[in-house]
Amino acid sequence: MEPVFDPFPPAAVPGSPLAGVDTPALLLDLDAFERNLDRMQAAADAAGVALRPHAKAHKCPAVALAQLARGAVGVCCQKASEALPFLRAGVRDVHVSNELATPDKARALARWARHARLSVCVDDALQVQALAEATREAGTALGVLVEIDIGQGRCGVAGAAGVLRLLEQLAPHAQLEFRGLQAYQGGLQHLRGRAERREQALRAAARAADVVAALQARGLRCATVTGGGTGSVEFDLESGVYTELQPGSYAFMDRDYADNEPGTRLRFEHALFVATRVMSTAAGTHAVVDAGLKSMSLESGLPRAWPPGAPWHYTQANDEHGLLTAAARDAAGAGVAAAPPPPPALGSLLRLVPGHCDPTFNLHDEVVAFRGDRVEAVWPVTARGYSR
Amino acid sequence: MEPVFDPFPPAAVPGSPLAGVDTPALLLDLDAFERNLDRMQAAADAAGVALRPHAKAHKCPAVALAQLARGAVGVCCQKASEALPFLRAGVRDVHVSNELATPDKARALARWARHARLSVCVDDALQVQALAEATREAGTALGVLVEIDIGQGRCGVAGAAGVLRLLEQLAPHAQLEFRGLQAYQGGLQHLRGRAERREQALRAAARAADVVAALQARGLRCATVTGGGTGSVEFDLESGVYTELQPGSYAFMDRDYADNEPGTRLRFEHALFVATRVMSTAAGTHAVVDAGLKSMSLESGLPRAWPPGAPWHYTQANDEHGLLTAAARDAAGAGVAAAPPPPPALGSLLRLVPGHCDPTFNLHDEVVAFRGDRVEAVWPVTARGYSR
Repeated sequence: MEPVFDPFPPAAVPGSPLAGVDTPALLLDLDAFERNLDRMQAAADAAGVALRPHAKAHKCPAVALAQLARGAVGVCCQKASEALPFLRAGVRDVHVSNELATPDKARALARWARHARLSVCVDDALQVQALAEATREAGTALGVLVEIDIGQGRCGVAGAAGVLRLLEQLAPHAQLEFRGLQAYQGGLQHLRGRAERREQALRAAARAADVVAALQARGLRCATVTGGGTGSVEFDLESGVYTELQPGSYAFMDRDYADNEPGTRLRFEHALFVATRVMSTAAGTHAVVDAGLKSMSLESGLPRAWPPGAPWHYTQANDEHGLLTAAARDAAGAGVAAAPPPPPALGSLLRLVPGHCDPTFNLHDEVVAFRGDRVEAVWPVTARGYSR
Repeated sequence: MEPVFDPFPPAAVPGSPLAGVDTPALLLDLDAFERNLDRMQAAADAAGVALRPHAKAHKCPAVALAQLARGAVGVCCQKASEALPFLRAGVRDVHVSNELATPDKARALARWARHARLSVCVDDALQVQALAEATREAGTALGVLVEIDIGQGRCGVAGAAGVLRLLEQLAPHAQLEFRGLQAYQGGLQHLRGRAERREQALRAAARAADVVAALQARGLRCATVTGGGTGSVEFDLESGVYTELQPGSYAFMDRDYADNEPGTRLRFEHALFVATRVMSTAAGTHAVVDAGLKSMSLESGLPRAWPPGAPWHYTQANDEHGLLTAAARDAAGAGVAAAPPPPPALGSLLRLVPGHCDPTFNLHDEVVAFRGDRVEAVWPVTARGYSR
């Protein structure tokens, strides 16, 4: 008989104390999260702009449903496959804010379009071709947005002439509905100073406005102009160009976004944390915690200890280890270094603010949603790993 | 009736041409992989040292079984939960090369020990306590290795005195079998120069040897001294201190290890790749591919285009995008920059060598194993995300 190896216990169960969560675990502070959702929705509503939050930030259908319940018109996904868990969870309006690399991906979207309102970006005639064939095969319709480059230098056609060329390609295919433009400038989202970020965001928006105007001059209407991100959303709303905004991180806030000088009207709170425990203090001079780069993505820098002012810093990560070292402290006013605080004791439960929320969610199969000191739910991160 | 959303097609099926793989996908070149396994096993056998490859590098039971089939004595895991998929796949000897942060993790190991030979590291009396209670409860036995710090400055006691203190703690618990020492210096694995790496590796090994000798002087035998990694393994074998080696990356080789000046006797080949396709060429000056930081971990730097000498470089990553820009080229001998090559065409299939294999495997649910131009198998990365 095959031996039976008991399952590993769950990280947390609803109703249990947060202090008992097994580590490492991804935590969501529901109070802060809901305030973030409310703030963003209120700002979009006040400006008369649709909110279509980006699901690549969290890959978690429960998060998307909470956004839709507050008035979001749908979600964005970054890949075709990423849309599937959201569709299956009941989201019925998904924009794939990206070009598709293969006809197979177009075919999947075209089939799913039987039961949902879907759209996707193009910046090349070959992509239009693939979408036309796939929708003809499936007998469905897809929305199409032409992506324009407003300064990021990644995907997108350069201006109105490029859009017009693609509109000619779209014209013979009635099942491909031109919905407008996608205009996103990711490069400015983390400019630290508010003034510089605003200037760049308004400049990018002006480039989008120029294309909209050039098309309008030819009688072509862009029903949708979609774009924007957490770092620029305040200025995107101010610009008057966008009909729809796509921020994702605002619901969670990571260390990298918190390092921005915030906007004056829209501010968001840290709602996402990685729970970790001290697993070794043998060195005496530092503590080692059980969350490393397999629990937090590090390409945007190290996580920050939470709450602010913690007497230790997360200073180094390996795959499954993190080093905590004492924060440098000056004796008040004296300019003399005080004795370092003792490292937190073996087994201590600590909280970290991850550097970048999107790829951090993408490392976890579930997020432990808590309120106060209680676990309220454990939400599956169903689209984790859906990168095709 | 609920709408039915068709599944997204698999990335590849066994027997299909590799050129048809959907992207992004993790690829394993089986010929190169098997040569790497054979080389390492032969070197360990020749030195009379046991090979216990680290499964944190791949999290894939099929890889572990291929290593065991060649003579590996078992595998290492870095977390308690990570061991489970390997146990369930038939691996019956697992060393958890790390301290456990909570008693729950000790209890899981103790239960699994009914059906497998398991061991774990300690560097604190509290950890011994938790293991003693868990094994008493489960009625099982566990092997225990005391971790010593041989220069990494992470976990581990400082020297023989620290080991002796833990042996006193272990003594009352007959079900905790002292198996010896774990001595790993991760900090030297990526020193680029071979001579410097060798010097540091032998210095670290000498620190381990000192502890072994001090224990031996008190009549205490270390049956096992385990440690070593891909960057140091040639020198670890030479040192004569280790009875067992734990390399992981050698089976795959990533860009970061390939940047080391190789050893003189042991060389490994790139066997692991990320397959990606060009999804946008609208800019004209560069191409955008569909693999970004959700398909490859970037904390150890960018991936390298494969094969060597490719006329474009992967120069920037976003979540789901990568930028390819032309490699600078000089007209032979003339010192004059040649015209940049045109970017690869939309839809082109390309191969990248990831910067760091361990966290890259941890992003993927499966690895597409190929031989020549055919897909031979699709192996589940079952322990992906098992970080507790």
